[in-house]
Amino acid sequence: MMSGATEIFTVKKVGASQTGTATDTLAVEEPLEINIVFGPTEKRIKKKVSVTMRTPGNDGELAVGFLFTEGIIRTKEDVLRVTSDTLNVVVIEVREDVVPTIETLDRNFYTTSSCGVCGKASLDAVRIKSAFTPANNTSTFQADLLHTLEQKLRKSQQVFSSTGGLHASGIFDRQGNMVLVREDVGRHNALDKVIGTALMNGNLPLTTSILLLSGRISFELMQKAYMAGIPIVTAIGAPSSLAVTFAEECGMTLVGFVRENRYTIYAGQHRIVQP
Amino acid sequence: MMSGATEIFTVKKVGASQTGTATDTLAVEEPLEINIVFGPTEKRIKKKVSVTMRTPGNDGELAVGFLFTEGIIRTKEDVLRVTSDTLNVVVIEVREDVVPTIETLDRNFYTTSSCGVCGKASLDAVRIKSAFTPANNTSTFQADLLHTLEQKLRKSQQVFSSTGGLHASGIFDRQGNMVLVREDVGRHNALDKVIGTALMNGNLPLTTSILLLSGRISFELMQKAYMAGIPIVTAIGAPSSLAVTFAEECGMTLVGFVRENRYTIYAGQHRIVQP
Repeated sequence: MMSGATEIFTVKKVGASQTGTATDTLAVEEPLEINIVFGPTEKRIKKKVSVTMRTPGNDGELAVGFLFTEGIIRTKEDVLRVTSDTLNVVVIEVREDVVPTIETLDRNFYTTSSCGVCGKASLDAVRIKSAFTPANNTSTFQADLLHTLEQKLRKSQQVFSSTGGLHASGIFDRQGNMVLVREDVGRHNALDKVIGTALMNGNLPLTTSILLLSGRISFELMQKAYMAGIPIVTAIGAPSSLAVTFAEECGMTLVGFVRENRYTIYAGQHRIVQP
Repeated sequence: MMSGATEIFTVKKVGASQTGTATDTLAVEEPLEINIVFGPTEKRIKKKVSVTMRTPGNDGELAVGFLFTEGIIRTKEDVLRVTSDTLNVVVIEVREDVVPTIETLDRNFYTTSSCGVCGKASLDAVRIKSAFTPANNTSTFQADLLHTLEQKLRKSQQVFSSTGGLHASGIFDRQGNMVLVREDVGRHNALDKVIGTALMNGNLPLTTSILLLSGRISFELMQKAYMAGIPIVTAIGAPSSLAVTFAEECGMTLVGFVRENRYTIYAGQHRIVQP
């Protein structure tokens, strides 16, 4: 197995002008097993939390981001050590006082996945778990800057441009500068990598940040942004109905179809300042 | 909660020519809880197998397709009854001699999700579970017809055209006629709906069919196609590395970037017949 983000394959390309054998660069998709070691010193327990199909790279950040957006860890200090003895396996050791309940661990098997527990019950669960409340966030963003985000994300998407196969999550500051970008075959992984990196750098909550997603916006992605305290979520694609309902109920701003010449505000208009 | 495939929201649209309040139709995303009732007559057991975020519509087919691609049921006759007492909950009653092991049921929490157990171990597991072997399939497809598939899928994608938010899976016959199409916010759900419908109509295995996916091709989608005996998988987007490796090892044909004027064959060239 490879451990890079891309892999080269020999293919047959058929096009209008030419046909023949060629090489093609594809985004690597491989399983990552996320384990957590927790419990009192005298009785530490190791438990497999999730297996996710991801693109190798920033595995530690992905695992930390996943544990954070699932509400299992809350701060950088909760993490004692991140190790990766074997390829495709990450072990996160947490502080003694981090006590994930079995239900919390089992619940992960839903949320990993564009599978949510969802609906009203889930909304309440997320609200209880998050230390941040985007609804109270008074951060704003200049409308004109929205049009510049897509191009900035594309420019920095190194792997996407070669493979056409990756999702990206980008964090921008209030001046529209890209602060952080991560890519993955799974859109939820790209976002977990961004949030995990921000956590390890001591930058959470991202209360003055704008998030840009390369694709569509699902309920699960909104949940993760909520956990990280992000007030404004934007995307190049369309949101789902539940993503919009979630944004409305949580007081978040959600903007879709963010392109050079247009965008659509689905929730939280007050944070987008018109010129 | 709504139970349709689309929902209308009031939004603010900003464009080059006009700006203002408008209505926008979005793809509905809601949880579907899939339950299975199994075991001997005197001691039937009901167990929740999965919760998936899906677009309402063809819920029974989705649930049946999911149980089939997970290897829990194998034939139409395994299914005694499909009921949906409550909105967003489906119950599949199976024959007495269908005995899902606890491991099988737990494994679902991985595969639901673009999360696979994966790699070599998973490949073997899928091979053992499937009743069909695409590698032995001698079905072919005329290369010229590949260029016509995208437009046929788009035409039939009723919801996509209004929301821009749905994935589609389409089944075509050897003459390039679209036989079946299903849409969903989750690409794995769109494929499970197609396979579940084929199962209930007595059309499995789909050994002379071509599958067209509206987006990218992940490992999980290849697994599902393999379970249904589909020899040729095509997609408008790019495959991941593991999707190609899986196709090669299983003797399946995989074609990406299927557009009006081009395509790329990643595996199983022999099934695509050049004019």
